This record gives sequence, C-alpha cells and structure tokens, in this order.
Amino acid sequence: MTKRAENFSDWYQEIIKNADLADNSDVRGCMVIKPYGYSIWENIQSIFDKRLKELEVENAYFPMLIPLDFIAKEADHIEGFAKECAVVTHHRLTKDSLGNLVPDGKLEKPFIIRPSSETIIGKTVANWVQSYRDLPLKLNQWCNVMRWEMRPRMFLRTSEFLWQEGHTVFETEQEAKQNAQLMHDEYNNFITNSLCIYSFKGEKSDEEKFPGAINTYTLEAMAQDGKALQMATSHYLGQSFSTAFDIKFLGRTNVQQIAYTASWGISTRSIGGIIMNHSDDNGLVLPPDVAPYQVVILPMLRGEETKEKVINFCKEIKQKLFEQGIRNFLDLSDMANSEKMWKWIKKGAPIRLEIGPREAEAQEISVAIRIHDGQPKIKVNFNALNVKSWLNDIKIEMLKKSKENLENNTKEINSLKELDDLFANNFAGFAKIEKSLTDDSEIFSKICQTQALSRRCILNLNNTKIAIIAKSY
Amino acid sequence: MTKRAENFSDWYQEIIKNADLADNSDVRGCMVIKPYGYSIWENIQSIFDKRLKELEVENAYFPMLIPLDFIAKEADHIEGFAKECAVVTHHRLTKDSLGNLVPDGKLEKPFIIRPSSETIIGKTVANWVQSYRDLPLKLNQWCNVMRWEMRPRMFLRTSEFLWQEGHTVFETEQEAKQNAQLMHDEYNNFITNSLCIYSFKGEKSDEEKFPGAINTYTLEAMAQDGKALQMATSHYLGQSFSTAFDIKFLGRTNVQQIAYTASWGISTRSIGGIIMNHSDDNGLVLPPDVAPYQVVILPMLRGEETKEKVINFCKEIKQKLFEQGIRNFLDLSDMANSEKMWKWIKKGAPIRLEIGPREAEAQEISVAIRIHDGQPKIKVNFNALNVKSWLNDIKIEMLKKSKENLENNTKEINSLKELDDLFANNFAGFAKIEKSLTDDSEIFSKICQTQALSRRCILNLNNTKIAIIAKSY
Repeated sequence: MTKRAENFSDWYQEIIKNADLADNSDVRGCMVIKPYGYSIWENIQSIFDKRLKELEVENAYFPMLIPLDFIAKEADHIEGFAKECAVVTHHRLTKDSLGNLVPDGKLEKPFIIRPSSETIIGKTVANWVQSYRDLPLKLNQWCNVMRWEMRPRMFLRTSEFLWQEGHTVFETEQEAKQNAQLMHDEYNNFITNSLCIYSFKGEKSDEEKFPGAINTYTLEAMAQDGKALQMATSHYLGQSFSTAFDIKFLGRTNVQQIAYTASWGISTRSIGGIIMNHSDDNGLVLPPDVAPYQVVILPMLRGEETKEKVINFCKEIKQKLFEQGIRNFLDLSDMANSEKMWKWIKKGAPIRLEIGPREAEAQEISVAIRIHDGQPKIKVNFNALNVKSWLNDIKIEMLKKSKENLENNTKEINSLKELDDLFANNFAGFAKIEKSLTDDSEIFSKICQTQALSRRCILNLNNTKIAIIAKSY
Repeated sequence: MTKRAENFSDWYQEIIKNADLADNSDVRGCMVIKPYGYSIWENIQSIFDKRLKELEVENAYFPMLIPLDFIAKEADHIEGFAKECAVVTHHRLTKDSLGNLVPDGKLEKPFIIRPSSETIIGKTVANWVQSYRDLPLKLNQWCNVMRWEMRPRMFLRTSEFLWQEGHTVFETEQEAKQNAQLMHDEYNNFITNSLCIYSFKGEKSDEEKFPGAINTYTLEAMAQDGKALQMATSHYLGQSFSTAFDIKFLGRTNVQQIAYTASWGISTRSIGGIIMNHSDDNGLVLPPDVAPYQVVILPMLRGEETKEKVINFCKEIKQKLFEQGIRNFLDLSDMANSEKMWKWIKKGAPIRLEIGPREAEAQEISVAIRIHDGQPKIKVNFNALNVKSWLNDIKIEMLKKSKENLENNTKEINSLKELDDLFANNFAGFAKIEKSLTDDSEIFSKICQTQALSRRCILNLNNTKIAIIAKSY
C-alpha cells in the first residue's frame, strides 16, 4: 500500500478501496457509496438527527427540481451556483432515425437539480408564514444535492452528494443569527465528540462566504498532509432570501415584517474528513461513534479439533457485547487468520478481539486496539471485558492526535512575504496571519493563486482578526 | 369538510390539507412533504429498515443520474420508462442577450434521473461479482426517484417520490425467485400489521408487470371508494438485467454463469394508501405504528384558577407515556378547547387524552379513541392508564374494517358481459373473474378502456387463475 508520505492522494484512494467504502461510477463525478461506507453515513445521520429532534427541528421534504426563475431571484446565489448545476430540459426520450435514444418533450421552462434548497424552501414557506405566531420555523431535510464538479474526488468532492440541510425562519435578526451560531456550536460538538476531529471554528470572510449569506460560520480541520477540510457550515442569511421570496408576516405590532433566515449543513464530505484525519499507512481508522462495527470478533482457528471451542467462546463474547449495546461483528468467513486480521485493520475497526484455541481454553481475550497497532496486544479475562471504557479512551486519544496535528502544523506569520516563502518551501499546514494584511491586496491574491491557497476562515483572537490560510480539499 | 360520499377526490385533498401532511409545490407534479406527513414516512422507514437489516440486506447509495445507454440496454425497461423521465442535458446556466438564464454546457451524453435503479445498480455490481462466493448480494437504497406524471395526485402519483428499492443478486433462479416472493410476504406483513391495510396478494399478469420483470408480485388494497391501490411490488427479474449488464460469476463447477436478480420497493405512495383506507368524514385516521404521535394529551382549560393543576396532571401523564415508550405530544398551544380537539381529530391521532379541571381533581383521564369518535368517551383512573393494549385493539379493529371493505366490495362474476354491466352501473369495488376469460380478448380490452379498468392482479385459487379487475389510483 502507498504510504502517506509518498503520495497522499494515492494513499487516500487506496484507503477507500481497501476498506470497501466506495467505488467510482460510470456517471462522471458521481460515486457509489458501498454498504460499509454507507453505514458510516447512517451512523452520522442517526446521531445528528437525534440531536436535531432535541433542538425541535422538524424533518420535511422539498422537491429536488428548482425552476430557473427561483434560482435567479437571489443575485449572489445564482452567481455562486450557475456554473456548476445539472439542468433538466426534457421530460421524455424518443428514438431518432438511427434508432438512438434522444431527449424529447422539451420543457417550456427548464429546471436545475438542487445544489442547495434555500430558493425552493424560501418560496414554499412564504405561504406558510402569515403571522409572528407561525415563527420560528425550524426545518431540515436529509437528501441528495448536485453541483457539477470539474475535479471530483471520492467523498470530498462529488457531483452528487448526500447531506442534511437545515432551514430556519425567525422574527428577528438576533434570533436568526443566534440560530446560525448555535448550529455552528452543534456541528463543532458533533465533529469533536463523535468524529474525534479538531478544527478551527471561525467565520468565512466576505469573499469566501456562501452565495447569499451575510455570515458563514465554518469548521476547518486539517488533513494529515496539512491541507484544509471544511467540515460543516452554517449561514446567517439575513433578509436575502426572505426578500427575494417574500417571506413576510404580520408582526407583534400589527405591521407587516420581513423574516430573517438561516441555513446549515453537513454532508458525506465529512467521511472524507474522517479518512484524511485519522487513517494510517495500514488503512482506515474509524472513530468509535460512527464505525459500522465498534468491535470485531475474529476467531483465529488452528485446526478442526479446537474449532468448535473457539467459535463457541466467540459467540459468548458476542452475546456479552450485544448486552452492553456495542455494535459488533463476528467474522466467521473462512479466510486465513492473518488475512482476516488484516482485513479489519484495513477496514479500521476500532477494536479487534482475537480468539485462538489458547484464549478459548483460558477464557481470555486478546485485544487489539486499532490506533495501537504495532504495540503489544492486551490480554483480558472474559469477565473483565469492558469495551465501553476502551472506546472512550480511543476517542480521547484520536481527538488529541487530531488536535496536535492541527496545532503543530499551524504557523504564525507576520507578513505576506513570509506567507509566500513559507508555502514556496512546501510548507504543509495552516498559516495564521492578521486578516488586515490580506485585505484588498493584489499581492495576497497573487500569492493565493500561485500557491493554490485560500483564506479558510477568520478567527477573532484578543480582538484581532486572524486569517487562516491554507491549501484545501 | 367535503364528505367521502359527495366527492372522494376533494375529500382526499382536504384530508391532506387539514392534517397538514403536504402541500402542492411550484414544480409541476411534485409535492412538498410537510413535517407531520414526513414523520409518517420516517416511521415507515424505521420499521421497515429494521426488518431489512434483520434480513441481512445492506444499505448503499448509487448515483441518481443514469446514462442513456444504460437505460437502453434492457428493451422492456426502456419501453416502460422512456415516456416519462426527466432528462439532464446541460451542466451549467448562462445569461442570454436579454439577460435570461438559459442552459449552457451541453453534455455530450444526456442523463436521465433514475425512475428506478436496476440499470445503474446492475452495471455497478457486475464489477463486484466475480465468483459464487460473492453471492448472494442483497442491497437496498432509500432515495428519491422521478417519473414524469401527467396526472399527478398528492402522495399517490407525484413526479418525484421517495422510496426504498431493494436489489438482490443470486446464483440460481430458485433463490432469486424465492427472494422476490419472500419480500412479497414481508411487504404483506408490514402493510397488514403496521399499516392495518388488508389487500389482495397476487401476481401481475404479463401485460401489467414491471418493465423487464419475469414475475411481478403485488399487494392491491382497496380505497374506500372501491378503487385499487398498489401498495408495494417485488419483481423476479430472471436474467434480464444480468444479461444486459453482464453480471457473470465463476460458478461452483468452475464455469462462468449468469446471475439471477430480483428487485422490490415500497414508496411514499403508501401514505396515500393509508389516507384512502382509514380516514373518515372528520379527517385523517392513522394506524398507531406509523402515527407521528400515538397519543396526544389535550389540556381542556377552564379558567386561570385550575390551569396549573390541569397542566401538571397532563405532565404526569406525559411522563407515564414516555416511560411506556409511547410517542406522545402534550398540546400546550393556546387554542380554544374544541378547536384543539378538532385539530387532533383532523390530524388522526389514534388516542386523545382530554384533561379538564374535573379530571385533574379526580386523577381521571377522559380517553377518546379516534376510530370511536362519536361514541361516548371512556374514563379511566391515572393508575389504570394502559395505552399499549388500546393501541393494539385499535390496530385489530382498523385491519378488520379494511378487510371488510375489501371483501364486501369484491364481486364474483362469470362473464365479460357481467363485468361491463357491473361497472356501467357505477359499481365501486373489485370484480373477480376467471383470468382465462380476460386473455387475448378484444372485448375485454374495450371494456377496460371504456370503464377505465385494469387487471390489478392474478390470484391462484384452487388451481384456477382469478383476475382482480378494478379502477385504480
């Protein structure tokens, strides 16, 4: 397998292939998410959806097709998405004189496939909101979206991807802005605690924010090659979309008011973030909260005589894990022992319980912790098996490592000259620089272009605005 | 509100509007599923997805866009879907000389939005299957699909709808056919036990089966106006798609073999079935298993003095229901008592617990069962509150009623003449007739056309094939 240090991009592809997460497809820019990869997404959905319900956000579903005149209504929004959208122009197929299938039934007005749903949701909820009593409105949908990617990369940048998009409507500016900030916090909690990824929590500058937003809040993590990964964003949209779509209501003082909105999302892109943050030269490493199996039980068979005893002991362990509420898998496939072990190393199972005849005899379990592979394995007695505390320790250690990677590879600099020199010398990491030095500067733009850099986010440190500059995925 | 007997179609629309299930959209043929309606779908998903996991079906995700040459590969399939599909022909927008947005970036090869995914999944899994050891493959995806509907109707027929589509691949004909039949049974169990809908369990005739299928198994329920509702279908596909997409494997005898496939699905259409089966002239009636709230608690306030006492008692009840694992909602909105009661009648909550000052004082609960509205309400003591058994009774009674509707309105007939006369006299129900009488008959086709009838399914009764003929949604 290619090592990270040799070729990070090849390494990434191989991780995905070896762990059986996803596959390329025959549709340009689109991927197939295979069962093992999709299971990670299901776990993300399950955790985050539960939290959304606690926050009284309601799931709904809006049409995937968006009329062109909707998308045209918000100037920045169309500017941002017009260059990369799938356009539906016909509603049937027919055969031409050569017998080839060709589009037929031209639509009077074409549609685009949603790149994001601010427009169609804005247009719809304008009918739902009449009075301040109808507010706040807190909606979410789990769905597919489409943005035509010119340089696709599995999980990180695909033309079609899956996400949740929250859309909220409020009476006041303050409430809407607070909602965007609350969700920024929620994403940060989720990414930190469930994905074990440490990130910079900041705001996009005006040039980099979401098309149509007043403020875009972002979480910028660092891949192991020093590039930035945008993990989730939330947007305070002010009255951009409520003006465009006429989301008005009769206010408390009996006066017609225009609502304030926010939107926020996290996508299958985050799985790319997980891979690039945690995996090693042996394969995938998964955070316990979203791993399809938190524990795998591997019978290490040595001949027919002891086979039944080993498998029976494995089943006892499985039962115990089941009772402790641990997602687990007993691998009874007929692979060779070492092959089976390597399979689950590559698939990133957080804990492997390896059971041979000796272990079965002694009612002992050989415990391999994925992030400690290479170190001697622990042996524990069946009665002392306490997987939950190990999973917790693993999470803490993974987060610590993620934080160290980000902190050790973030460099403070004081001038654009330094910035240029830094990346010209193949610096792999984030540069921290006073934002004012990057404003309206031709030199800054040129450095960004030459070195393929961008401002990832702006932090507010001791009342000084600091820009984080990096290459990014 | 319009009554069923007056205008069933208007009644249906009003049920949806009054229960706040869904809304029309500005996108032709597409609907917006509102939170209360979407919650029913989430419950359907949750129950059925759990069962799929028990059946070792794995969730995955395949691209929504399908290349034209894929869809063209299976002759019947393209025949079935070419006339009603959304075609993507461009990948960006630009402005014309008048400033109007127009499609730009014409694709060399257009795509259609999936109407069903046999083709793209077939093409993909052909790469995954090398040996008989890779089989069986049991995949499923929860997603949106698109079929351009000329006469849309909310839930029942919309251009975009949500569904699960299972796709399975096997070594042998027998296994694949058994899988299609197993899923036919599973859908029947789900529809009967969770949706409380009784249906005819049969097979489509060759003329009515899924494009590309060898056998299509179907469940045909009856709406209260006597029309047929197709609830779920499963298809034995033989080698149609595995031949078209080259799903080959090295068999047990070391010979290349062609696989056998099956596919099966249930959609948001089933929510239309729920409405048309169970609702009454007062509003929606929901089966307990999929109702967003199985029980609603309604404080019936009479003045400020007793308000706190009433609400505190309601909260005690809520806690008790929570402990019993019952989905419930305490409605603290400031509507008038009767308005609040009617709201939840229209929204079809299976059980309403109505609490006024007298009830709070006596620690008694006034219980209104939605399907018994109009009958005197039950009074029970707080300590005797046992909602689970009532929910079970409700299910049994709803299913019984659904069965009676189907049986009482199914008529056996013995000739095509009788069939014609029956429906000419505005018969609202299913006709049962020997299938042989309907085969290759010009007269039969003409009756079907004139009376808007179709063969819904074929039953095998005492070795005789019986056709069920009806109008349908």
